[in-house]
Amino acid sequence: MAIDNPYYSQENHGPYELIDIGRLELEEGGVLERCKLAVAMHGKLNAAKDNAILVPTWYSGTNKLLEQVYTGKGRALDPDRYCIIIVNQIGNGLSTSPHNSDDPVAFPKVRIGDDVRAQHKLLTERFGLSSLALVVGGSMGAQQTYEWAVRYPDMVKRAAPIAGTAKNTEHDFLFTETLVDAITTDPGFKAGRYASSAEVADGLGRHAKMWTVMGWSTEFFKEGRHKLLGFETMQLFVDNFMKGYFAPMDPNDLLAMAWKWQRGDVSRHTGGDLRAALQRIKAKTFVMPITSDMFFPPSDCRNEWRFIPDAEFRPIESIDGHLALFGVDPNALAQIDRNLNDLLAAKV
Amino acid sequence: MAIDNPYYSQENHGPYELIDIGRLELEEGGVLERCKLAVAMHGKLNAAKDNAILVPTWYSGTNKLLEQVYTGKGRALDPDRYCIIIVNQIGNGLSTSPHNSDDPVAFPKVRIGDDVRAQHKLLTERFGLSSLALVVGGSMGAQQTYEWAVRYPDMVKRAAPIAGTAKNTEHDFLFTETLVDAITTDPGFKAGRYASSAEVADGLGRHAKMWTVMGWSTEFFKEGRHKLLGFETMQLFVDNFMKGYFAPMDPNDLLAMAWKWQRGDVSRHTGGDLRAALQRIKAKTFVMPITSDMFFPPSDCRNEWRFIPDAEFRPIESIDGHLALFGVDPNALAQIDRNLNDLLAAKV
Repeated sequence: MAIDNPYYSQENHGPYELIDIGRLELEEGGVLERCKLAVAMHGKLNAAKDNAILVPTWYSGTNKLLEQVYTGKGRALDPDRYCIIIVNQIGNGLSTSPHNSDDPVAFPKVRIGDDVRAQHKLLTERFGLSSLALVVGGSMGAQQTYEWAVRYPDMVKRAAPIAGTAKNTEHDFLFTETLVDAITTDPGFKAGRYASSAEVADGLGRHAKMWTVMGWSTEFFKEGRHKLLGFETMQLFVDNFMKGYFAPMDPNDLLAMAWKWQRGDVSRHTGGDLRAALQRIKAKTFVMPITSDMFFPPSDCRNEWRFIPDAEFRPIESIDGHLALFGVDPNALAQIDRNLNDLLAAKV
Repeated sequence: MAIDNPYYSQENHGPYELIDIGRLELEEGGVLERCKLAVAMHGKLNAAKDNAILVPTWYSGTNKLLEQVYTGKGRALDPDRYCIIIVNQIGNGLSTSPHNSDDPVAFPKVRIGDDVRAQHKLLTERFGLSSLALVVGGSMGAQQTYEWAVRYPDMVKRAAPIAGTAKNTEHDFLFTETLVDAITTDPGFKAGRYASSAEVADGLGRHAKMWTVMGWSTEFFKEGRHKLLGFETMQLFVDNFMKGYFAPMDPNDLLAMAWKWQRGDVSRHTGGDLRAALQRIKAKTFVMPITSDMFFPPSDCRNEWRFIPDAEFRPIESIDGHLALFGVDPNALAQIDRNLNDLLAAKV
């Protein structure tokens, strides 16, 4: 039985449209019989259908924050010029997810590749698109961006993976495992059969604490940036901002995303050869790590960048760590916008 | 009732001498009626009694690893030249600790300052010392080193805090809290009333995983240094090396040390004024962060170094992160030795 969760609503995250793309066979062998993708569109498709920008979502994220932080008049992602399509990833609570399916605990394993095939089906069959001016995403959105560029090299004209990798590292896999542990070891989790997120509040709270430690950076707290956000002490920042952010989310949904995150790997297309996979990319690609990111450090991203034909390495300077993606550092956003403007201006 | 734990034995960590320094009143208000310090000495005190080097221990560490990794003929800490005194910190399992006291759960709160006063009592009253040629320690050993230099500025001639801070950061406090959570949320922990460490194996295992994520560095695993240590996969490294290291330790002992670690702060001497506290230092001081340390990043250590009169900032280049302290990067050890040789050669 689906779990009622008022967090995942049009009021909180809309407007978005829930689009049924039909049956989706999954790479791990499962099936989503009626896969629904929550889609938010901003701007209009032109007659040539060549101004579409796809924005996939990150772990815990939905279309709403991406809309608010990354799109707008005068921004790189300008709805007056582009048709910006934000697709919520499977498992994020708005699209088909454990908590909104008949048996949350029996939800099948979903991979990044499944998301990308689902999005491809949506964009080609529903929207009649045959090219994307840009795919841009942060974190798990970057994982999907890489997957798009490798899997559909002719369709993706430009790619901007921000703060994410094409193949997840062993270090990041282990970090994610500690996040998973924080949730699953809460006795209230009951192997996924809790009645509401509130029963898993302790586990979600520990998960939020670990996100605080690794998600921002030591410099962020030393400089007191949490105070600029309105929290006098780190404890208040953790208790209100970080725990408050994750508390209403569905634990099984988070775990479905975490499983997917851990296993992001475009080299599945090439028998484990990462270089060969990345060399398939035809999109003009800007690789944009965040300098203080402890999940996806610049050195890991640089390592992959070298394999992508004609790609540019454009690190984003910020002390906000991985969570610079949240957009509280306006200087980081300005750098991302400048890079995206350059990329969109690039002839392809 | 004390908990029998064969890990803390002369066989594993000796030779060390257990010295009863008598009653120790603690800063938090408790008392250790018969405080026993486990002490390992290497080398002889000279007639002038001016060749003593004090080495305090880090979280989870004992005298043994310090002896094996840092002392020896031809090393900076050479027992032929110096009288090297390694004192196990209170709570580390060899010195007076929760597990070897009558009521482990009622063990009083101990601070870094308590350790340093206990060591001072030992060195002055038992050994008749009035000066220390050097105090050197890593991590919590660095916390004690700073405390020594600030509290007893006339006694400490040279100080070498490695990979640690004088005042713990809020970020590191929170990270340590996630380590504490990993142990205390294990149902087998039973609020400290477990019968053996084995009952807390799950919690200790999660604690080990989190140490793996933050203790080494992303580069360490990318470069496959864990393979050089004999572990083919990261999973084997975690399961055998990291979990194996922590598994036999006593959870209450670890928690006593973690509480102390979180609250290391020399500015308690100066009403919270860190600059004023560090300006008390008369020792010639080399501040030695490890470049890839995620607990005590170089920028945090640099921040403190500026306040110490005539101090030198000597970062240790290594991709082994905080756990370069373990000594598996010979190049890091060589740098530490060079710095310690320079420091010991410095006129004071």
